[in-house]
Amino acid sequence: MRIKAEPLTAAAFAPFGDVLDASGQPDRFINEGRCGRYHDRAHLDFGPGGRAGISIFRSEPRPLPHVLELVERHPDGSQAFLPLDRYGFLVTVARDENGRPGGPLAFVTAPGQGVNFHRGTWHGVLAPLRGNGLFAVVDRIGDTRNLEEFRLERTLTVY
Amino acid sequence: MRIKAEPLTAAAFAPFGDVLDASGQPDRFINEGRCGRYHDRAHLDFGPGGRAGISIFRSEPRPLPHVLELVERHPDGSQAFLPLDRYGFLVTVARDENGRPGGPLAFVTAPGQGVNFHRGTWHGVLAPLRGNGLFAVVDRIGDTRNLEEFRLERTLTVY
Repeated sequence: MRIKAEPLTAAAFAPFGDVLDASGQPDRFINEGRCGRYHDRAHLDFGPGGRAGISIFRSEPRPLPHVLELVERHPDGSQAFLPLDRYGFLVTVARDENGRPGGPLAFVTAPGQGVNFHRGTWHGVLAPLRGNGLFAVVDRIGDTRNLEEFRLERTLTVY
Repeated sequence: MRIKAEPLTAAAFAPFGDVLDASGQPDRFINEGRCGRYHDRAHLDFGPGGRAGISIFRSEPRPLPHVLELVERHPDGSQAFLPLDRYGFLVTVARDENGRPGGPLAFVTAPGQGVNFHRGTWHGVLAPLRGNGLFAVVDRIGDTRNLEEFRLERTLTVY
């Protein structure tokens, strides 16, 4: 199966998570008007027994076409990816259909955009298209495994 | 008063907060070995009645020399700055001396580094040296004002 990656929009991504960027007007200005604050843009959910943590991920670049053989989800918490670089990355997601990933969608972020996957959202691995591959990740710190993987019946190619 | 900004190191910054970067070995590898996870690197503290949130800040560039007339602190929570760009930024901090900021220090981050100010750390305003001025900020969402400002008796110039 082959799908085309589309530019990321908040509307298209809404069933899966939040787009974290500086679109629209800031909620308020700080620092004598020299800095805009786009306030509290992620639906963070770390469930019972979890707390927020910040980790750093460093991934190899994964240029297109990107071939997926499995997707994963985190049943116990949301997970936000914030690129510490100027380049976009690939985001592949799928709706849940009775515990299995349904029809996948793929998006490419714009520079300066992050995403927050809502708790339990099926997604592909972190896929920087180019650049240093560094991300800050805000996700659940806790004692559970918090990982489900699903091996796809048919390989998915994102182009 | 004039001080020189030095390259940021975890040791020098330890009294004030955490350096968030991919230095050293990852705590573990994920994605079939293609991505390193530097796990849970920030001491997050949102106090009673607070929760974690992710906001986006967009600041004007503030090239050196940088002139500070005030510093601020957030008594109710930690605050992390994660640059959504490839450039370093200026971090000015001061120790607390009986409720007032003491001798200040200034640091310049490397590309791909963020910082987390510990709860109550005196610091200057967000100061990207160049680039898009975009940051993801992980700080306390809550009902308190969570802001103290201190106007410096003598202007501080960081060069």
